[in-house]
Amino acid sequence: MATVPLLSDDAASPQARAVFDDIRAKRQTDYVNNFWRALAHDPAQLAHVWDRLQQVMAPGALDPLVKEMVYIAVSTANGCSYCVHSHTAAARSKGMTPAMHAELLAVVAMAAQTNALATALQVPVDDRFQT
Amino acid sequence: MATVPLLSDDAASPQARAVFDDIRAKRQTDYVNNFWRALAHDPAQLAHVWDRLQQVMAPGALDPLVKEMVYIAVSTANGCSYCVHSHTAAARSKGMTPAMHAELLAVVAMAAQTNALATALQVPVDDRFQT
Amino acid sequence: MATVPLLSDDAASPQARAVFDDIRAKRQTDYVNNFWRALAHDPAQLAHVWDRLQQVMAPGALDPLVKEMVYIAVSTANGCSYCVHSHTAAARSKGMTPAMHAELLAVVAMAAQTNALATALQVPVDDRFQT
Amino acid sequence: MATVPLLSDDAASPQARAVFDDIRAKRQTDYVNNFWRALAHDPAQLAHVWDRLQQVMAPGALDPLVKEMVYIAVSTANGCSYCVHSHTAAARSKGMTPAMHAELLAVVAMAAQTNALATALQVPVDDRFQT
Amino acid sequence: MATVPLLSDDAASPQARAVFDDIRAKRQTDYVNNFWRALAHDPAQLAHVWDRLQQVMAPGALDPLVKEMVYIAVSTANGCSYCVHSHTAAARSKGMTPAMHAELLAVVAMAAQTNALATALQVPVDDRFQT
Amino acid sequence: MATVPLLSDDAASPQARAVFDDIRAKRQTDYVNNFWRALAHDPAQLAHVWDRLQQVMAPGALDPLVKEMVYIAVSTANGCSYCVHSHTAAARSKGMTPAMHAELLAVVAMAAQTNALATALQVPVDDRFQT
Repeated sequence: MATVPLLSDDAASPQARAVFDDIRAKRQTDYVNNFWRALAHDPAQLAHVWDRLQQVMAPGALDPLVKEMVYIAVSTANGCSYCVHSHTAAARSKGMTPAMHAELLAVVAMAAQTNALATALQVPVDDRFQT
Repeated sequence: MATVPLLSDDAASPQARAVFDDIRAKRQTDYVNNFWRALAHDPAQLAHVWDRLQQVMAPGALDPLVKEMVYIAVSTANGCSYCVHSHTAAARSKGMTPAMHAELLAVVAMAAQTNALATALQVPVDDRFQT
Repeated sequence: MATVPLLSDDAASPQARAVFDDIRAKRQTDYVNNFWRALAHDPAQLAHVWDRLQQVMAPGALDPLVKEMVYIAVSTANGCSYCVHSHTAAARSKGMTPAMHAELLAVVAMAAQTNALATALQVPVDDRFQT
Repeated sequence: MATVPLLSDDAASPQARAVFDDIRAKRQTDYVNNFWRALAHDPAQLAHVWDRLQQVMAPGALDPLVKEMVYIAVSTANGCSYCVHSHTAAARSKGMTPAMHAELLAVVAMAAQTNALATALQVPVDDRFQT
Repeated sequence: MATVPLLSDDAASPQARAVFDDIRAKRQTDYVNNFWRALAHDPAQLAHVWDRLQQVMAPGALDPLVKEMVYIAVSTANGCSYCVHSHTAAARSKGMTPAMHAELLAVVAMAAQTNALATALQVPVDDRFQT
Repeated sequence: MATVPLLSDDAASPQARAVFDDIRAKRQTDYVNNFWRALAHDPAQLAHVWDRLQQVMAPGALDPLVKEMVYIAVSTANGCSYCVHSHTAAARSKGMTPAMHAELLAVVAMAAQTNALATALQVPVDDRFQT
């Protein structure tokens, strides 16, 4: 179904295999999901994305669950089916309750609606919103 | 610049004017921003959007600042210039610090990047992500 | 502001100038709008788009005003500022009333909202919707 | 396949069940489609979307079939697979003929094409398109 | 699965059948892919798209493989699953190597990321980028 | 106009200033464009994006001009005005001729059009396009 074969551990290059192992270690699971197995055809990109993802999603000024919910929101707006599924699962594993999920979707839907209205009306930005 | 004239208080219908007054009262400000003045050509839609926005953005399982940041994320993915400006301003007024803003944008950018990769690779959804 | 200079009649090639003249004749106006003046750098593309547009927007099973409103809807969803402006003006010149405009925008906003919900929920297509 | 289980009548809350019953009554069918069964996890949102949809899609300055075709256009531009399927089915049930469908798609495709050109060329909006 | 039945050669109109035959002759294959069989419900549109595609994708100032890779990039950004699959296959048949595919995806991902950042930051266009 | 002030050299942190200096050195120009000055509020993100951009856009299996044209295509599809301007300028500085630009835009427009058709028709992916 993917545009490239998903690479098993045996089929992956040593560099890609090392990333798979790091994913397993950091996530404390034996499972490496399909995104990484597809990306493994470009081991340098695989390593880059995995490294960057860890930096970006780490606890900081925002907590990791908020970040996962933002990820769901962007993935929804961009229409990425895989990403909606994987990040909804990730958000749940980090504590997203059904009530939080419902409110998240209500905000995403509200934003989609007012984005469309503001674009159709071509509303000029208020001076006071300019920094 | 808008596709409809922005309505001043005097030009707005009594129903629209009532919404303007409610915006002022609830937000404790004299200022009604351009989005509402453009939407005022359809007073029923104006009233609907204003009512719904208050419900959706109210404190609940998610706090209002998280909701504003989700709103920025969706508005960015949808390319709504007005909405990015207005909700960035709103998030700041609710306490978004420069560090939070920076982390939010890093997540949005990361998601945009992996959304593109997952779509270009057409990665099939893992069984374990299916509920 | 455009990524190419807008071509005046004098600067346009004879092939592009002929399209400008045809636009004036068919629309019964002296004015050639900026889209065509930007497109004129590729006279073959200019002629192709102008010809195709006339075919697609002509009266048929759908009337031209409905087609213009569909055009506004797509342009809004795609975030094309120029197109929202030009097709809102075109729809008005073909008879779109403020009430029709308001209802059009309400549908566009509703669709944007439920599109987001269906995508975030990844709702499977019902068998009965399959042909 | 959805990110939440689809709720049967038995699994739905009384509030959600009441919406299901209203959908059946208003549409004069026994069938409740998957969108509503997924949305039923948030009964307040379910009720809100169902109520609003009826208002927005009701006959008015635009007829319901035109509204369904606008819905297809927006759903296509937003890449919502579920929505394209469900609203194409809905438009057919309201009288969309194959000829109307073909013309609708021709307009949607034309708009997508000129949206891309206007964006790539960054064409400035003509003064006369400004209200 | 499509919103219209895919038309076999026998079910297609003579005009659509003629396009199918031309596709076979020009591509030197017996296979006509699903896109054309779905589009065949509107034979005039089918003929138009097939003709235009040949013109646009022909060798010129850009070579056909570069054009296929641009097509993959746009299809990815627009979230068109069918198009990503079909144009990835087409690019491979025209010589796209795994290394070229990997670099293409890296650029697409990079662009998606900086598009998001520039939009979230609402960066004004530098005077020197204006023609 | 941006959602953050553009940082001058004096206002930028030492880490951000070092990136500005590297941009000047690598590009052999005194000019640092607005994107970097907006991004400089998050010096770590600024350094990351600048580093990654150099890697991704470097000569490899694809030449830098092809990569710039892919960047324009994605930026157009994503509706990023700033990015369309900056990468059109960059492509020209790397040798994009008017004829190449015209063909690029023709492909982008064609892809946008067939993306819309394939999505509206919900064409199922042919088995032979599956790897």
